[in-house]
Amino acid sequence: MPTTDGGRVLADLRRLAEFGRYKTGVHRPTYSPDDIASREWLVQQFAAAGLEAVIDGIGNVFGRSPCASRRLLVGSHSETQPHGGWLDGALGVVYALELARAFAADPACAGLGIEAVAWADEEGHYGNMLGSRSFTEGLSATELDAAQSREGKALRQALADAGYAGRPYARLDPARYVGYLEAHIEQGSMLEQAGQHIGIVEAIVGSWNYWITVSGEQNHAGTTEMHRRKDAGLALVQLASAIHERFAALAGQDRQSRTVWTIGRILLDPNAPSIVPGRAEMQVQFRDTDTAVLERFAAALHQLVAAADRSGPCRIAIAPLSKSLPAAMDSRFQAAIEQAAERHVPGRHRRMPSGAGHDAQVLARRLRSGMMFVPSIGGVSHHWSEDTGEDDIVIGAQVFAAAAATILQAG
Amino acid sequence: MPTTDGGRVLADLRRLAEFGRYKTGVHRPTYSPDDIASREWLVQQFAAAGLEAVIDGIGNVFGRSPCASRRLLVGSHSETQPHGGWLDGALGVVYALELARAFAADPACAGLGIEAVAWADEEGHYGNMLGSRSFTEGLSATELDAAQSREGKALRQALADAGYAGRPYARLDPARYVGYLEAHIEQGSMLEQAGQHIGIVEAIVGSWNYWITVSGEQNHAGTTEMHRRKDAGLALVQLASAIHERFAALAGQDRQSRTVWTIGRILLDPNAPSIVPGRAEMQVQFRDTDTAVLERFAAALHQLVAAADRSGPCRIAIAPLSKSLPAAMDSRFQAAIEQAAERHVPGRHRRMPSGAGHDAQVLARRLRSGMMFVPSIGGVSHHWSEDTGEDDIVIGAQVFAAAAATILQAG
Repeated sequence: MPTTDGGRVLADLRRLAEFGRYKTGVHRPTYSPDDIASREWLVQQFAAAGLEAVIDGIGNVFGRSPCASRRLLVGSHSETQPHGGWLDGALGVVYALELARAFAADPACAGLGIEAVAWADEEGHYGNMLGSRSFTEGLSATELDAAQSREGKALRQALADAGYAGRPYARLDPARYVGYLEAHIEQGSMLEQAGQHIGIVEAIVGSWNYWITVSGEQNHAGTTEMHRRKDAGLALVQLASAIHERFAALAGQDRQSRTVWTIGRILLDPNAPSIVPGRAEMQVQFRDTDTAVLERFAAALHQLVAAADRSGPCRIAIAPLSKSLPAAMDSRFQAAIEQAAERHVPGRHRRMPSGAGHDAQVLARRLRSGMMFVPSIGGVSHHWSEDTGEDDIVIGAQVFAAAAATILQAG
Repeated sequence: MPTTDGGRVLADLRRLAEFGRYKTGVHRPTYSPDDIASREWLVQQFAAAGLEAVIDGIGNVFGRSPCASRRLLVGSHSETQPHGGWLDGALGVVYALELARAFAADPACAGLGIEAVAWADEEGHYGNMLGSRSFTEGLSATELDAAQSREGKALRQALADAGYAGRPYARLDPARYVGYLEAHIEQGSMLEQAGQHIGIVEAIVGSWNYWITVSGEQNHAGTTEMHRRKDAGLALVQLASAIHERFAALAGQDRQSRTVWTIGRILLDPNAPSIVPGRAEMQVQFRDTDTAVLERFAAALHQLVAAADRSGPCRIAIAPLSKSLPAAMDSRFQAAIEQAAERHVPGRHRRMPSGAGHDAQVLARRLRSGMMFVPSIGGVSHHWSEDTGEDDIVIGAQVFAAAAATILQAG
C-alpha cells in the first residue's frame, strides 16, 4: 500500500499558497502572473516526482508516467477564485503530486502510474471549466476567439501573455486511463456537522441557470398613479417570491430532496428611490443530481414566468443561460474510496452529492470518475478564510492514495 | 390685466436651455459651470425687467422690486436633473421673469410687485431643496459643512468655486410678501389624459422614505442545503411582495386614494448568481397629501418588518431616511388660479395634488403659497426628452399672470 507523507503534503500546499497569497487565502486568477508562476512550479514538482511534465496550449499542467502499464489520471485545478481559499483546487493537485511520489516509492505499485494534472480555469475566469473541457472534448476556435475575462481581457491575449500560445492542446485518449480521480474540499459543512472526515461523492449536481427579464415602464415615483404603473421591480419581487414558494413545494414532495435553488442576482433599472423601475432582471439557478428533478423545476419555472407575463402589466421573458447535466461517479470508484475511508477513519465518512461543480463532471463524460471530499471548516468556500484542519488534510491524502491503489489494482 | 408675451417666454426658455444643452434636454447640475453661467444670465434678465437682481450665498437668484407696495414672490428652481428636461424648474423661473415684465408694463398694476426668484438646488445635487430652505428657515453650519454631491464634492467647495462664498444668505421677511406662487410642469400625465391645460395644485404630497436592511448569511449556492440557509435575498423579495400587497389593501380601503408607493432601489450583496445573498437592502417610499394616511402606511410598514424579523431566519431592520410633510396650498390662491384658468381655458383645468416635491412646500411653511401645473407630454419627467406643447406654455404664462394679478389685487 503506497504511503503518503502528511508533512510533505502540508509543506507543498503552503508553498503553492505563496503564489498570490492574500491574507490567509490566495488571489490567483487564471493566467495571472502568480498563476503562471505556480504552474511553472508545478512542472518542477511533477518532474521531481519522476513524471514527464508539460503545460499544454490552454495551461493544463500534466505530469505523465510513460512506462506505467495501468494509469489513473489524478488532479484538480490550480487557479483560485478572486481572493479565494488556499485549498480550493490546490488540495487535489498536491494530493495528485503526493500520490505520484508515494506510488513511485512503493515496489508493490510497480507498473501502476499516477498521472497528475492541474487543470486551467475550472473557476471560470475566462470560461466554464476551460482546461478540462479542452482536454475532454476540445474547445472550438469560436469559443477560444470569443472568450474573455470579466475585465474584458481576451483569452487569446491571456494565453499569449502566459507564453502558452502555439502549444498543442492536449486531448484525452480514453484507452490510456483506468479513470479519473479528484480530491477537493467539501465547500459545505455536511461533514463537519456530522463529525465526519471523508465524503464519497455519489454524483455532481447539474446546475441549470436562467435569466429573467421584466420590461415595464420607467416613471416618476411621485406623479405616476398606481393604476397607471408598469412597475418592473414590483413584478420581479412578486415573481421571485412565487418561484421560491413553488420550488419549496416541489422540493417538499420528496423528503430526500437535496435540490437547492438560488436567486443570487437582481438588477433594477435605474435602481433609484424615486423612480418606478422600468426594467428588472434576475438570475434563477437550481441544482440537483437527478435530471428528472431538474426538468420538473424547469417546467415549474417556465409556467410561473408565462403566468406572470400573461397577467401583466409588465412583459416577462426567460432565457436559458447554462445547463450542466448531473454527473454520476463510478460505483466501483465510490466503493474504493469508501473502503479506504473505512480503514483509516472507520464510521467517520459518508456518501454525499457534490453541490458544487468540478472538473470531474467533465471527465466523467469520457472516463470512469470518482471524487473524494475533505471537510471545510464552517463550510466556508470561495473566500480567503476557507480552511481545513491539518489532520483532515493529512488523513485525506492517505485515504485518497489507498483508494487510488485499489482502483489501479482492480484490474 | 397684465398681458404676457408668449413668443418672448418661448425665446427665453430656449435661450436658458442653451446652458448645458443635452440632446433636446439639459444637463445643468447645481453649481456646475453651466448652472453658474445661467444664473448670471438670469441676473441680467431680471435687471432688464426692472428688478434689482442679486445672487445670494447659496446661489438663489432674486429680482427685487423695492418700490412696490404689495409684493408676490414668484419663481422656481433653475438647475436641472442630470440629463434632465428643459422645462423642469426653468418654466417657473421664466414665467416669473415674464410676469415681472408684464406687470411693469401694465399701468393698472402700479404698486404691485412681482419679485422673481430662481432657487438653487431644488433637485438635491447637494441637499434637499437647499435654496428655498436656506431662504425660508436657514441652513445650519453643520449642514453646510457636511453637504456634498453624489460625486463627493463638498458644498462649501462648490460655493467657493461658483464665487458665492462669503455672500450673505438671503432670509425671508414674511411681512414683505402677499405670498409665493410657483408654476411647474406636471411631471405626470393626468392633465394630458384628461385633455386639460392647467392644474391647480391643492396640496403637495409628503414623501416618507425608509431603508430596510436584511442580514442573512452569505453561502455557496451549490453546497448549502436549503434548510441551513439564511438567504437575505429571499427574505427581501418576500417582504417587498408583502409590503406591496398590504399597501394596495390599505389604499383600496379609500376609493379616492391617490397614495403612491415605490420600492425603487434594491441591493443584494454580493449579487452573484452562485452565492446565497448574505445581505439585502431596499428603499421603501410612499407619498400622500394626508398625514393621517402616511401614518397608517408607516405603521403597516413597521408591522410587516417586525413580523418578518421575528419569523427569521434573517434579521431585518428598518431606518427612516427622510420624511417631508404634506403642504396644503392656500385656498384663495387656488381660487385665483382656477378663476384665471376658467377665463382662458374654460372647463379645461382641474384641481389636483402634486405627487412630486417642490420649493413651494418649503415656502408654504411661512407664506401663503400656490402652485400651477402645465401638462407634460406623455407624463415624461426627469429625462432629457421631457416636453410641453408650445400652446400650453404660452397659455400657462397668461393664466399664471392673471392669477398673480388677482392675488396681488385682492388686498
